Amino acid sequence: MNKLIYLDHAAATPLDTAIKLAMEPYLSDNYANPSSLYAAARLTKKALEGARESIAGTIGAKTSEIVFTSGATESVNMALLGVVRSHPGSSLVTQVLEHDAVLGCRDQLVAEGYHVETVGVSPTGLINIRDIIDAISDSTVLVSVMLVNNEIGIINPIGEIAKQIKLIRQDRLARGVDMPLYLHTDASQATNYVDLSVSRLGVDLMSLNGSKIYGPRSSGILYIKYQTKISPIIFGGGQERGRRSGTEDVAAAVGLGMAIKKSQDLKHEESRRLTILRDNFIAQILKTIPGSSLNGDKKNRVANNINLSFDRVDGETLILYLDKIGVNAATGSACSTNDQAPSHVLLGIGLSESAARSSLRLTLGRSTTQEDLDFLAEKLPAIISRLRELY
Amino acid sequence: MNKLIYLDHAAATPLDTAIKLAMEPYLSDNYANPSSLYAAARLTKKALEGARESIAGTIGAKTSEIVFTSGATESVNMALLGVVRSHPGSSLVTQVLEHDAVLGCRDQLVAEGYHVETVGVSPTGLINIRDIIDAISDSTVLVSVMLVNNEIGIINPIGEIAKQIKLIRQDRLARGVDMPLYLHTDASQATNYVDLSVSRLGVDLMSLNGSKIYGPRSSGILYIKYQTKISPIIFGGGQERGRRSGTEDVAAAVGLGMAIKKSQDLKHEESRRLTILRDNFIAQILKTIPGSSLNGDKKNRVANNINLSFDRVDGETLILYLDKIGVNAATGSACSTNDQAPSHVLLGIGLSESAARSSLRLTLGRSTTQEDLDFLAEKLPAIISRLRELY
Repeated sequence: MNKLIYLDHAAATPLDTAIKLAMEPYLSDNYANPSSLYAAARLTKKALEGARESIAGTIGAKTSEIVFTSGATESVNMALLGVVRSHPGSSLVTQVLEHDAVLGCRDQLVAEGYHVETVGVSPTGLINIRDIIDAISDSTVLVSVMLVNNEIGIINPIGEIAKQIKLIRQDRLARGVDMPLYLHTDASQATNYVDLSVSRLGVDLMSLNGSKIYGPRSSGILYIKYQTKISPIIFGGGQERGRRSGTEDVAAAVGLGMAIKKSQDLKHEESRRLTILRDNFIAQILKTIPGSSLNGDKKNRVANNINLSFDRVDGETLILYLDKIGVNAATGSACSTNDQAPSHVLLGIGLSESAARSSLRLTLGRSTTQEDLDFLAEKLPAIISRLRELY
Repeated sequence: MNKLIYLDHAAATPLDTAIKLAMEPYLSDNYANPSSLYAAARLTKKALEGARESIAGTIGAKTSEIVFTSGATESVNMALLGVVRSHPGSSLVTQVLEHDAVLGCRDQLVAEGYHVETVGVSPTGLINIRDIIDAISDSTVLVSVMLVNNEIGIINPIGEIAKQIKLIRQDRLARGVDMPLYLHTDASQATNYVDLSVSRLGVDLMSLNGSKIYGPRSSGILYIKYQTKISPIIFGGGQERGRRSGTEDVAAAVGLGMAIKKSQDLKHEESRRLTILRDNFIAQILKTIPGSSLNGDKKNRVANNINLSFDRVDGETLILYLDKIGVNAATGSACSTNDQAPSHVLLGIGLSESAARSSLRLTLGRSTTQEDLDFLAEKLPAIISRLRELY
């Protein structure tokens, strides 16, 4: 048996061993509800607030700006639904390649009667900042653009968008337009590789997730900049300063705090290492497999993402063939359970339905080695040939 | 040092050791996203669906009727907001002693323009079923009544309410009234002691939680009976048959499935055991401490709940004094972080503000022994006397 080669880190990551160990006491011995009054509860409360401080420190925020959630999907929902719903008559601007969480909220807001604008992208997935700016009207309260795309790895120019938004805010102020304008980024796929300083990014809201960064499942935060008007989407006991009700998950918070810190600490080193692996692999495949092409921009691309299309190959069958040789990979996002539909991301960059169905997404991670990719590069040509015979 | 006597099981429970062990593989080795296509993902998918089958089997539901959530607060939010919002012009009936999750959703629905009726209770916390029925109008789409109260332990007559609702449904049908009528119960505090068969209870929706039943935090389900019209409150990748988006937490699901089963398996045995401990303790305290009284009905009371008021005693100070002798207890719900306000439950049964602030909630659990309560019964009179000197 070959060892398992896991190349689906954008779908899920294993829990880091040190993080698991650190969470352990809060799974068993230290179980007090942090909202209780006795010493054992003050201990769990302290751990919860320590995790919040760690996250705030890592992304350059205030502790009061960090809200714990059950993951990035909930964070994104809170950002989009919470901001737009609390501004009657407001509208949303986003772009076609966003994760289903953003697009699902967008569709819900349309159903609730809000106006939305969804901006297109270039054939390599790049956003034209001008398009975003042109889509903003005086009713726009929120612009939501992901930091890193989960399928084709595009790194979006959030800092540049933030600068333009600042100018629009100044213009609104000068013209006496009351509607605030906020920038949200879904950074779920960015934490391992991209600097998340909220001041450098210039964002007002940012969604993060534990499950893609070697942290716990069901863990996430929404960063909400001071003075951002937002309503909760989950109501109850008033935890998280009234912004997210529900008994706090101290173990998850502790694990998430460590995961965000470690990912940010390793981001340069891992980016350098994986960029080399990625670029060598892409070059080799494009050279050795005729009818292969890279999806998404080559340059503005996160270090761990490879997304290829192979003419006359069924992507799902390819995944099963790779599984047989011990390689775990994806054809699109694991986050969309509508298996019948081709990837909206690949369609969004102009691929035909058949090209979108012939894609292979490889997402590298901490365990990925040169040997893993050499093995795959060696095996892939014959598999692609075989699949073309079947096609 | 005395050993720690934990009497706050309604606020939080330790994770059962066997459950923790069973969750372990899904925290570390088996980390594949269950929506992925390869064998490792089919394994986690199988574990997820196995947990769903277990829960469905335990409560007598179909697997398609179980939606995993991040906990009972989210489940309650989904039930109330999801059902009412998907029926334009509808209204909600609930009662004053509900958990803040229900009352928070109720207030949100009022803010969204829906009509709600909140029924009062007797001085011992009992619901008059007639009051519920009288509050139902032809616009009522949902009645939400908790199965067990988290502060005073009242067990509500859900089965009886369900029977009346069935009659109202038949009457609506005969009169050509289109609005459906559903019954939701928040059973967060019931799972350890009360039978949760959804057919015997007669409910259409039921919220359950892992964190109060020796299961994992951030875990819960909403039972949604076949054909109940409900919209999601969290949008995205379409997991949970489109009803709750977000990467599935397999470890949490596995742990929750085991926790619900074990709690239901032990419910009779634990109820018998704790009822004796509870009743002896209450009798002893009422006898030995003048100016003490029991809050909530003595008979329709969950086995593990003791809620007492002591004249001229500050509840929060009492908690701190008990903590000093190694006893963890509560004055009200840990789920309400608005520390300044007295318990809405104790006010709801007619206590004065000062009586509501002088309460002690003891919630027993699997670790609770006769010795624990004997120790407390011995120490409590002197503590109460001391606190009355301070008052």
